Amino acid sequence: MIDWIDKARQGQPRAIARLITRLENSDEAAQQIVKALYPQTGQAHIVGVTGAPGSGKSTLVNELAKAFRRQDKRVGIIAVDPSSPFTGGALLGDRVRMRDLAGDSGIFIRSMASRGSLGGLSRATAAAAKVLDAAGFDLILIETVGAGQAEVDIAGAAHTTLVIEAPGMGDDIQSIKAGILEIADILVVNKADRPGAARTVRSLKTMLQLGPTGGTRHHGRIITTPTPAEVDESVWQIPVQETVSTDGTGIEALVDTIEAHRAHLRATDGWLAREKERSRREVRTLLQYRFMARLETAVSANDRDELITAVARRELDPYTAVDKLFGSMK
Amino acid sequence: MIDWIDKARQGQPRAIARLITRLENSDEAAQQIVKALYPQTGQAHIVGVTGAPGSGKSTLVNELAKAFRRQDKRVGIIAVDPSSPFTGGALLGDRVRMRDLAGDSGIFIRSMASRGSLGGLSRATAAAAKVLDAAGFDLILIETVGAGQAEVDIAGAAHTTLVIEAPGMGDDIQSIKAGILEIADILVVNKADRPGAARTVRSLKTMLQLGPTGGTRHHGRIITTPTPAEVDESVWQIPVQETVSTDGTGIEALVDTIEAHRAHLRATDGWLAREKERSRREVRTLLQYRFMARLETAVSANDRDELITAVARRELDPYTAVDKLFGSMK
Repeated sequence: MIDWIDKARQGQPRAIARLITRLENSDEAAQQIVKALYPQTGQAHIVGVTGAPGSGKSTLVNELAKAFRRQDKRVGIIAVDPSSPFTGGALLGDRVRMRDLAGDSGIFIRSMASRGSLGGLSRATAAAAKVLDAAGFDLILIETVGAGQAEVDIAGAAHTTLVIEAPGMGDDIQSIKAGILEIADILVVNKADRPGAARTVRSLKTMLQLGPTGGTRHHGRIITTPTPAEVDESVWQIPVQETVSTDGTGIEALVDTIEAHRAHLRATDGWLAREKERSRREVRTLLQYRFMARLETAVSANDRDELITAVARRELDPYTAVDKLFGSMK
Repeated sequence: MIDWIDKARQGQPRAIARLITRLENSDEAAQQIVKALYPQTGQAHIVGVTGAPGSGKSTLVNELAKAFRRQDKRVGIIAVDPSSPFTGGALLGDRVRMRDLAGDSGIFIRSMASRGSLGGLSRATAAAAKVLDAAGFDLILIETVGAGQAEVDIAGAAHTTLVIEAPGMGDDIQSIKAGILEIADILVVNKADRPGAARTVRSLKTMLQLGPTGGTRHHGRIITTPTPAEVDESVWQIPVQETVSTDGTGIEALVDTIEAHRAHLRATDGWLAREKERSRREVRTLLQYRFMARLETAVSANDRDELITAVARRELDPYTAVDKLFGSMK
């Protein structure tokens, strides 16, 4: 295992892939690997990319990866599809992507589709990001399809979150928009050559202004009476940018904005705040896993099943069942 | 509180609404209320309705509610919008719905939109369903917008899950379909008067056949060598039905199918299996809540924050932080 960790640190793709798989599949291995890798992490800029289906996220992520490569940055891509329990979809996307980015050792791609729990997917994503971070990748793009809680959770693992829209989405998408607007650091209207792009940009800007923070994020140091300049520095105005990922329009500008956001986080307390948020989520998840593992050791599967059956049959209420389970762990 | 519980059992809407709010907002109250109500629950048929945005779910749910009312059943509707942190959307939907179903004391409607965690929303939904169940509602329709993990979790609380599609959704929706197909007991193609409806029905049937169970769900008693008749009885063939919710086409047939699924679950081990699954999830969630509450009592917020900051600064790895936290709980 230590051998693989060394090889991953040297950036060997097979070692990286193997470590990610081990992290996903074995809790004991995960503990050993994370303890060894952890001091090397914290350097990569983690960028979450999410948005509604049909917004062209995958193509945009590919173009961003190529643009960052032109700056000689090493780029990891983690493509998460929590809504696809059939791996076929993810694998297909992967193959298209592989053809586009193949043969570049500065790019590593990992696709994830899972019928498992959301928690499992968040953990796997965090694990993959950690390995890529320790392996010296400068930028990690985490792409999620859909627009639900999964995206919000996965965005919690990112320093910078891009929300991608496209013109001509139905009105019913509005409610989804509202949910993901809350997590956006940068809004992107992709397919901006299509009719209605200007209207989509306008409506996003309006939604930002109507939102609770008026379209800003605050990463301030705590200053009781800030000077106007200090206020300006600590506030990030969420931009709305247009791209056409199929012909590259707007991609360089978007790369600049992503860099600007990183610089902004670094210049304020934003970077540490996001690292703390991520650490909090991770420690909480690990705590809950360990607690459930202890419970499973303390109470046999049979006894647990009997309790659950009694709850299902209304012979026992769920709170009393919890009292009993806690009591058994003493 | 006991007073409100009695009134809710008598079906008084204000008492029901108040109890649901109490359950959502206070853990102690929840414990007291659930312990009192729990023995009265387990009678209602809980039906989850989910599907992609634009499929016309809300109108369909309203029509279903009205059709069940014509059979003199009392109907509760819980409308969940996990992707909308701005309550505006949910409130708007609620007002439209209220106008449609207003003045019928046999219908109770609760809208839920939350910026809180997915776990919080699942808990709140389960709580509302429990109050309505104890209050003697025959049918509880839980409607979720979107198509992510939230829907899968909330479907875990239902006996019967309807997945709604509509013709003319883009190909990009396919991957979402795959995810929610796994949870469907009944597939509905709504807006079936639109062009492409027949194609949508065909493609859903094909997806079902290609799926891991060939479009069936098995709720069998454990029979080592079943006769052909026993096999037939224990298998539910997932139907694909067409509706036009705006003019009522197909609604009565859908009501019949929902009833048939309930009868099927009751005739097999399916009903208890789903009650057990729900109980398992609920007990697990309560356990994790109680565990976190104990941790927060054992370790001060300050100490926790110091640990998290050390993890964020890479001075401590997350597994060692978990060791320390567990150690402090002794």
